Amino acid sequence: MEFIEKDLKYIWHPYTQMKDAEELPPILIERAEGIKLYGANGKVYYDTIASWWCNVHGHCHPRIKEAIKNQVDQLDHILFAGFTHKPAILLAEKLISIAPKGLSKVFFSDNGSTSVETALKLSFQYWHNIGRSEKRRFLSLEYGYHGDTLGAMAVSDLDPFNNCFEWLFSLHYKASAPYCYRCPARRTRQTCNIECIGFIEDIVKAHASEICGIILEPLVFGAGGMIVYPKEYLEKVAEIATRFDLHLILDEVATGFGRTGKMFATEYTHIQPSFLCVSKGITGGVLPLGATLTTEKIYSAFYDDYSKQKTFYHGHTYTANPISVAASLASLQVFEEEGTMERCARIIPIFHQELERFRQLPIVGDVRYIGMIGGFELVKDKSTKEPFSVEERIGYKVYKEGLKRGLILRPLGNVIYLFLPLCIKEEEIKEILELTYSVLSTIVS
Amino acid sequence: MEFIEKDLKYIWHPYTQMKDAEELPPILIERAEGIKLYGANGKVYYDTIASWWCNVHGHCHPRIKEAIKNQVDQLDHILFAGFTHKPAILLAEKLISIAPKGLSKVFFSDNGSTSVETALKLSFQYWHNIGRSEKRRFLSLEYGYHGDTLGAMAVSDLDPFNNCFEWLFSLHYKASAPYCYRCPARRTRQTCNIECIGFIEDIVKAHASEICGIILEPLVFGAGGMIVYPKEYLEKVAEIATRFDLHLILDEVATGFGRTGKMFATEYTHIQPSFLCVSKGITGGVLPLGATLTTEKIYSAFYDDYSKQKTFYHGHTYTANPISVAASLASLQVFEEEGTMERCARIIPIFHQELERFRQLPIVGDVRYIGMIGGFELVKDKSTKEPFSVEERIGYKVYKEGLKRGLILRPLGNVIYLFLPLCIKEEEIKEILELTYSVLSTIVS
Repeated sequence: MEFIEKDLKYIWHPYTQMKDAEELPPILIERAEGIKLYGANGKVYYDTIASWWCNVHGHCHPRIKEAIKNQVDQLDHILFAGFTHKPAILLAEKLISIAPKGLSKVFFSDNGSTSVETALKLSFQYWHNIGRSEKRRFLSLEYGYHGDTLGAMAVSDLDPFNNCFEWLFSLHYKASAPYCYRCPARRTRQTCNIECIGFIEDIVKAHASEICGIILEPLVFGAGGMIVYPKEYLEKVAEIATRFDLHLILDEVATGFGRTGKMFATEYTHIQPSFLCVSKGITGGVLPLGATLTTEKIYSAFYDDYSKQKTFYHGHTYTANPISVAASLASLQVFEEEGTMERCARIIPIFHQELERFRQLPIVGDVRYIGMIGGFELVKDKSTKEPFSVEERIGYKVYKEGLKRGLILRPLGNVIYLFLPLCIKEEEIKEILELTYSVLSTIVS
Repeated sequence: MEFIEKDLKYIWHPYTQMKDAEELPPILIERAEGIKLYGANGKVYYDTIASWWCNVHGHCHPRIKEAIKNQVDQLDHILFAGFTHKPAILLAEKLISIAPKGLSKVFFSDNGSTSVETALKLSFQYWHNIGRSEKRRFLSLEYGYHGDTLGAMAVSDLDPFNNCFEWLFSLHYKASAPYCYRCPARRTRQTCNIECIGFIEDIVKAHASEICGIILEPLVFGAGGMIVYPKEYLEKVAEIATRFDLHLILDEVATGFGRTGKMFATEYTHIQPSFLCVSKGITGGVLPLGATLTTEKIYSAFYDDYSKQKTFYHGHTYTANPISVAASLASLQVFEEEGTMERCARIIPIFHQELERFRQLPIVGDVRYIGMIGGFELVKDKSTKEPFSVEERIGYKVYKEGLKRGLILRPLGNVIYLFLPLCIKEEEIKEILELTYSVLSTIVS
């Protein structure tokens, strides 16, 4: 097909071994509506991973379309230094009103990586501005993922395939993660007392004086394998951050905007982060936008006479792009108009119940879920938890089988997951899980 | 005013000492059309810096609006791994057709910083993939600017105000720049033989074995102060890169899409870069989008069986966002329909001629220009070239005066510049320069 040939001639796709296209070329999508993508090949695909965890209300939602169309007639884009516009002001106000307590300022950017970069740089410069420039490292977690730009990557855990970059990132500390299925403290969740917090605590006790902050994804390590962890762990991390006067940087790029059953995963606790990073679902999954929310305390450390040289010299050209911002305002309006979170609250238990059934599959070692996110860790041997080797590409096999059935089961290593648009209906969940079950059964046999 | 109060309550603006708003609050823009921004205060502003160097055909161009509206009805966004869409394929094809020779693949991202991050990571991993993992540093130039994410920033020159981050960036090499007005080799352009190339050559001779590539902005250091430099310098850099087998990474984020009088500044030469980074004007200045173009040779070093672990694991959620891509296709169409480059070719000489007149102002030490970019370096003493001190904030004074006259003369330190939308008319140029002249005269007196 002409377009696919051109695709392979001109395009380098993200996260893709392009040679795989010799066997499975990229699928050309012509249109999208609700939770369905319509291929030029006539096939229909359920958007089971919400187009990389960003689609919220379904594709081409009329409310969001309308907002974009109105905005482009009015104001397409202006620089956001010295100038401002109503959509950005309204969105900042709205974000603060729905965000965890204690956050009062919004710094806009273009994507998840840049929302994390902003937080890291703000944290770093905060300590510099208050005369504590010995603080210049970050503490992050194994299985953590915070983006692909070099700074964001430096605090992400390195994929084994990507360790060629390791040399660039030796500046930071990394602690073992609360990965219950493979507990680093060798406990079991049923009887443990969150002993894994010790890995963080030990590092902090030894190095607090040089640490700016702790960065992690609240309740779910997304790219790390949809590893869901206890809220008590997050609360203990927050307690350590408070006790040692470190910034707590919560990366809600994936979890934000309803995905975990709360507007923000942080709401499962009462903790107050210094930074909250958001993107992906912020525009309903339609246009790129990122935002970093922070506190008055951080803001104040930069607010001074110009000559004091405390300004945060950072930004991107398309900061607070009015069109992206208009989409975001519309998406937040849809949450209210459609009672999205209330609807999810009714449907999520059904989703979770259906997921439990997968435990009986011989290939499924662990089933993990929170809100509209569900993951299956596939193992070679359930009793020993022996993983499949990289060479076996078990995830890729599942992915190919899924496509045949109109599912997008894009793997994270040996983890298969569903990351569902919040607009999904009960019967759609049931059908998707039915199909997923049949895929995972096929792989076994 | 209610909206401005809310702005200051909730928003942290980029590159802004927020305390400055006590004297000069952000200006609320309600709509934009052509090269004019319409303030809620009733004032009209010429978009003299193309909304941070991105607007091309004027604001709210009907063709681009139409393309966005059509696209949101069809396909808002899908993940770009395993899937593809026609707008992205057409744009990749188009970009390759207009880009400098030798580039054949397009990797999309969201902004200028990420287009640079992509190039740096590709370059780094290229050497790793071919077994040369001792190559892991980059060579960049003083006054160079490549973005604000930590990786992109590491190869940018550090603003003196930002040197708190310096500790993070000691990995790379930096060479003196071809800054003719303040020549690091103490020559004058009229008689020199580009001796300043020696600064790069010396570093490369000593460290080529550990250098991945050389990154620079072709012909203009934008954020460094609109420093225009001779094409012979760029040709010599390319020759060094070839001679020592280093990647040449050209950052055309600011200069791309017609700004210098050619579609890409690189076209002033016949050099063939390994990477070309673009963003800003790519969508006509309407929506965020970035792209990194590279060669078949680079691509081939990643193209292999999956098990060989050569894949480039990198990407952003909104990679090749269909709406941004549709805007970009429309913008490139406008170039053709309106004969933008031909029109510019007629107008640019008039612009340059008008700029020359500024040399007579006592405050103007240097006048620099290329294409639709013009810069004035303000100095305290023309004979000694003594710069104004940071405390004097001469640029900020000009900025405030400019606003009174409906101009956006946002300074880069002591440099005032115009970065004009390509749709500008001859009489608009004349009026803008008239007004700018009167501003700079006022500051003198």
